[in-house]
Amino acid sequence: MKILITSGGTTEPIDAVRGITNHATGRLGQLLAQLFLDKGHQVTLVTSPGSYRPEKHKRLKLIEVSTVNSLQNVLEHLVKDHQVFIHSMAVSDYSPVYMTDLEDVMASKDLSQLLKRHNHQGKISSSSDYQVLFLKKTPKLISLVKKWNPDIRLIGFKLLVNVPKEQLLQVARTSLHKNQADLIVANDLYQIKQDQHQAYLVSAEGYQTLTSKPAIAQAIYERVISNDKNHPPRCQR
Amino acid sequence: MKILITSGGTTEPIDAVRGITNHATGRLGQLLAQLFLDKGHQVTLVTSPGSYRPEKHKRLKLIEVSTVNSLQNVLEHLVKDHQVFIHSMAVSDYSPVYMTDLEDVMASKDLSQLLKRHNHQGKISSSSDYQVLFLKKTPKLISLVKKWNPDIRLIGFKLLVNVPKEQLLQVARTSLHKNQADLIVANDLYQIKQDQHQAYLVSAEGYQTLTSKPAIAQAIYERVISNDKNHPPRCQR
Repeated sequence: MKILITSGGTTEPIDAVRGITNHATGRLGQLLAQLFLDKGHQVTLVTSPGSYRPEKHKRLKLIEVSTVNSLQNVLEHLVKDHQVFIHSMAVSDYSPVYMTDLEDVMASKDLSQLLKRHNHQGKISSSSDYQVLFLKKTPKLISLVKKWNPDIRLIGFKLLVNVPKEQLLQVARTSLHKNQADLIVANDLYQIKQDQHQAYLVSAEGYQTLTSKPAIAQAIYERVISNDKNHPPRCQR
Repeated sequence: MKILITSGGTTEPIDAVRGITNHATGRLGQLLAQLFLDKGHQVTLVTSPGSYRPEKHKRLKLIEVSTVNSLQNVLEHLVKDHQVFIHSMAVSDYSPVYMTDLEDVMASKDLSQLLKRHNHQGKISSSSDYQVLFLKKTPKLISLVKKWNPDIRLIGFKLLVNVPKEQLLQVARTSLHKNQADLIVANDLYQIKQDQHQAYLVSAEGYQTLTSKPAIAQAIYERVISNDKNHPPRCQR
């Protein structure tokens, strides 16, 4: 099978030297990619600079992206050409529009006008004690996947922080439904520590609890394989 | 000699999953640390997670820091205990205070009140199209170094983006004077590409031009060694 995996986290530039980033190491994506390679599959790994990735392999194609926009461009093409998509990358949900001094913002009569401005400096320089950064929502890429390829099997991820288990599961079920995903891996940052990583694999049938990254990777692999046996693709490529 | 080197870049948290970061690989710091180790010196390398660093070495002490605040705490202690400090880390000049929806900001009668608020969520969640992030200036750590240890030899860095050479040199001279540095390494992001890295080593006597990271590391090493011969420390430790 052709397996598409994203890992790591996007960084949205504020200027040429600064950006807003998601803390993500890419370790789970590395394990997933290695597992599918070991089992004889073709793997395309889309990841961010500096993230963990497997050693070079003849069946591994590695693509580095940094921003949400570059990720979208790469995925729109790749999703059409793969049978499975495991989207574990932490994608920025807001992207910088304009940064300026607090004084400028306070002096502005209509803040919405500031949203039309852009920083042209390579490095925004300021001697002001406070600065204000305006951010705009990015497109939810996971919601576009089944539009690009209705036949792809989609495994999404949901990371929350310090919420009750029931809330985490509910958010995962909503994402499952809204994005027509086959599986959502739901986890809470407070349950991720060194070698421990608690996650719930949420599908239409229920959920499964895992407690380490290797166990999560193995469980995802088994779901993908078993789904492949039960539901052969509608069209063979 | 005991050489203290910082490298990589700090990340200031917006919440538990997002942060503002400086793009810095730590490659020059890695070269510098390796060079001083090879020449028989004691090296303390303070760097950020994910940055390049030398292999383990019995004379290398490695300390990881992420935020400006943790960097300050670590440096205040270490600067007093080293003879040379090469401060190549990209330190965030602004740190997040509070993030909220644009609607909240527009509805606020006094924006300075928003600066007193803090986000208590682990992951700031929003369905708003726009968000606004308020940032506060961080302390300039380089300006504190000679207060902590007047005897330390201080090598600072200045990175600008797409400025004329004269402006870059002038900014470096100002930093040299203001921070009582012995040397400022001035570089322009637009002059850093793959294997090329143009930098000016600016001192009270003039400046020297280098064009690659190994050449910059070697030139800094030679300055440190020659300064050591010409200016023995006032007090022996």
